[in-house]
Amino acid sequence: MANKADILMLDACTLRERLATGALTALEVVEASIERIEAREPEVHAWAWFDPEFARHQARQLDIHRQTGRAIGPLHGLPVALKDIIDTAKIPTENGCELDRGRVPIKDAAIVEKLKTAGAIIMGKTVTTELAFMQAGPTCNPHNLAHTPGGSSSGSAAAVADGMVPLAVGTQTGGSVIRPASYCGITGFKPSFGAIPRTGVLMQSPTLDTVGVFARTPADAALIAEVLFGYDEADSATRPEPTPALLDIARSEPPIKPIFAFVKPPGWDDADPQLHAAFAELAEALGDRMFEVDLPAPFGDAAMLRERVNFAEMARYYYSYGKKGSDRLGPLTLEALSKGNAILARDYLAALDWGDVLYAGLDEIFDRCDAIICPAAMGTAPEGLEFTGSALFNGLWTFVGAPAITIPAFTAENGLPMGVQLVAARGNDARLLRNANWFQGWLTDAGA
Amino acid sequence: MANKADILMLDACTLRERLATGALTALEVVEASIERIEAREPEVHAWAWFDPEFARHQARQLDIHRQTGRAIGPLHGLPVALKDIIDTAKIPTENGCELDRGRVPIKDAAIVEKLKTAGAIIMGKTVTTELAFMQAGPTCNPHNLAHTPGGSSSGSAAAVADGMVPLAVGTQTGGSVIRPASYCGITGFKPSFGAIPRTGVLMQSPTLDTVGVFARTPADAALIAEVLFGYDEADSATRPEPTPALLDIARSEPPIKPIFAFVKPPGWDDADPQLHAAFAELAEALGDRMFEVDLPAPFGDAAMLRERVNFAEMARYYYSYGKKGSDRLGPLTLEALSKGNAILARDYLAALDWGDVLYAGLDEIFDRCDAIICPAAMGTAPEGLEFTGSALFNGLWTFVGAPAITIPAFTAENGLPMGVQLVAARGNDARLLRNANWFQGWLTDAGA
Repeated sequence: MANKADILMLDACTLRERLATGALTALEVVEASIERIEAREPEVHAWAWFDPEFARHQARQLDIHRQTGRAIGPLHGLPVALKDIIDTAKIPTENGCELDRGRVPIKDAAIVEKLKTAGAIIMGKTVTTELAFMQAGPTCNPHNLAHTPGGSSSGSAAAVADGMVPLAVGTQTGGSVIRPASYCGITGFKPSFGAIPRTGVLMQSPTLDTVGVFARTPADAALIAEVLFGYDEADSATRPEPTPALLDIARSEPPIKPIFAFVKPPGWDDADPQLHAAFAELAEALGDRMFEVDLPAPFGDAAMLRERVNFAEMARYYYSYGKKGSDRLGPLTLEALSKGNAILARDYLAALDWGDVLYAGLDEIFDRCDAIICPAAMGTAPEGLEFTGSALFNGLWTFVGAPAITIPAFTAENGLPMGVQLVAARGNDARLLRNANWFQGWLTDAGA
Repeated sequence: MANKADILMLDACTLRERLATGALTALEVVEASIERIEAREPEVHAWAWFDPEFARHQARQLDIHRQTGRAIGPLHGLPVALKDIIDTAKIPTENGCELDRGRVPIKDAAIVEKLKTAGAIIMGKTVTTELAFMQAGPTCNPHNLAHTPGGSSSGSAAAVADGMVPLAVGTQTGGSVIRPASYCGITGFKPSFGAIPRTGVLMQSPTLDTVGVFARTPADAALIAEVLFGYDEADSATRPEPTPALLDIARSEPPIKPIFAFVKPPGWDDADPQLHAAFAELAEALGDRMFEVDLPAPFGDAAMLRERVNFAEMARYYYSYGKKGSDRLGPLTLEALSKGNAILARDYLAALDWGDVLYAGLDEIFDRCDAIICPAAMGTAPEGLEFTGSALFNGLWTFVGAPAITIPAFTAENGLPMGVQLVAARGNDARLLRNANWFQGWLTDAGA
């Protein structure tokens, strides 16, 4: 029997292989996970709902299934954490909101069904900010408990970063996958808009809401994303197209070494000077594999336009929350609702059109590179738990629907991680993962 | 050579057959059309742009094309009138708006390309209300010049009704195809939302705008609609699906005699009492081929919700009109823009969702019938040209995106026609045309 701490060190792809060969049982993996959670949860507060018996039960079922010689799923025996805005049948899904205390969905979200079918173990529900907006939950950054893990997928990022689970699912409407992944020093992947169905996931802003994943490596992110990708009639953002072979492509060698287009997003000057220095070093190290390019001028308005779409749709889809009990919502949520309530339809519709216009402005850049490269956040995780950090370097990519991934690349003087964000053209998720995989390998080699 | 007046009496399908066999030339057809237009236009005012030489030129080209033995298109030699919000390359497209006086598009609208490819003769541009809203143009009802032809596709309806052309194209955002067709005593067909691409057609309200056609019979409507249906990447409302064989299906016998569900739309009590009487007679004549059913209660709000979507989107897409010259827009347009400018994004988004909710409420009705049957308008064409009539009996079907067709069925005491409207489930356009064809035949038999 493998040592529990050793199990937790393995990446998801390796774990999956050992589970497939029988070198590890699902129960062994889950017990390692449970032990880690029970040891660390009192400090990290990553979980909104966790029941070790529920996890053990699934593991035993999966082990029996495998022992009868039947085919096993691509995520067989892998513990997965789910942000608590993703509906789980018979398990509380409280959306980080007092008004949803005790809410137990009848149906699984479409992605939960996919995970179960793939043999994943639903490990529990992870802390989200209130209604996946900015009012923080209790989760701490595993690298330094006095710092935020970022939001809104706070618990999902922290659980993976702390080694409690190898994989987690979150969502991004502004920067809620990439930012916490960067703050927590793990890989976060936000696919192209519409790649993963959102049926059964709390709807904040249907134009922007995107399901994403947390993992230790780009290949692990590809492993779980490939299961989640797909068409869902109930989510009009999805398209009836075949799912790309994300994992195989992610692990393959790029036919030619990738070229990166370095952009300084609006707000760059206000970013941590350590980030400026780190990117200068990166430019030197990458040499002619990286060139700098300016974003088209209208990107200066991207944050304002994205926020307008976000707040207007939030005012519509969170209307009943505001009505039911404004005294039980946090001030940040209330402020956004109040702003959203005041937005005119005409201005909302005008902002909506900008998503495609801005995206068209990236054509020339994508033509010249394999991926855009830029920081994943404005610096390290801020101190304190109240402020989950700025999504300024993420919102623009969410707004244009382009896939983005962050890879832990730098460590600041305070010991906290900072991620490098790669961005690709819509629909180029598989190639983005491959380039991220290449980049991670290059980083390791460069660091060695 | 056929007598010109005789030519104008032929329906489009028959004309098309004679053109195909060579019994008629395109030039003969066009000359008949020109003669009628020149005789009647000073009274009817159906045309915004008309040049007989432009029509003759196309006819001669088509005759040469045919004489060389090459394959001819499905609309070979048929004169078609286009509402003047449909872009035509090198030909003025003024949107019925003083601000667009002298506007000449560079590109044809997608549907104009389709018509040309199909061998249609672009006969000219027909009068539209200002920006396809409610501010009337100069067109008179051919049945009685003191009455409105309805709007907004006023000239298209009048041109077909007056025998100037066998076919015309219009658009409907509220009731701008079905209502003028009913007032003018012809067939008007508004297909399922998204069936016909709108690229190059003035955008008033992308959630509602639907291209429709005017003809003498349901089969003629099917003939031209089949050419116009199709996917267009540039219009996200269209879907990459094969076009149904509208004409073949429209002309085929229904496998069983259709059953109609008679609904009284909100506003029924305010409709012309002659209409009440006509539908009572219709019920008697149809016997057990028709049953009455209530619309679900939320349809009481349909008009308000549709208007909210319409006005909000109008405020966004006509923003530059309002800005450029509010002194050169009619009071009805200005009032709608002013209302649209005040709509909140939250309320707009809430209204938007109702389209699908209301449609879902029709499931049970469509399960029990082949088509819904109801009046096409609240009565005959109102007297005077200022008010183009109420779209109350059309807007609800536009809002839910269901295909609708009107067939001239009754004549009021004042000699003006009233149409019967048939409505089917989304995507059932071909079967709707077949049932309309059946209904028209039944009407003829019943009247004989």
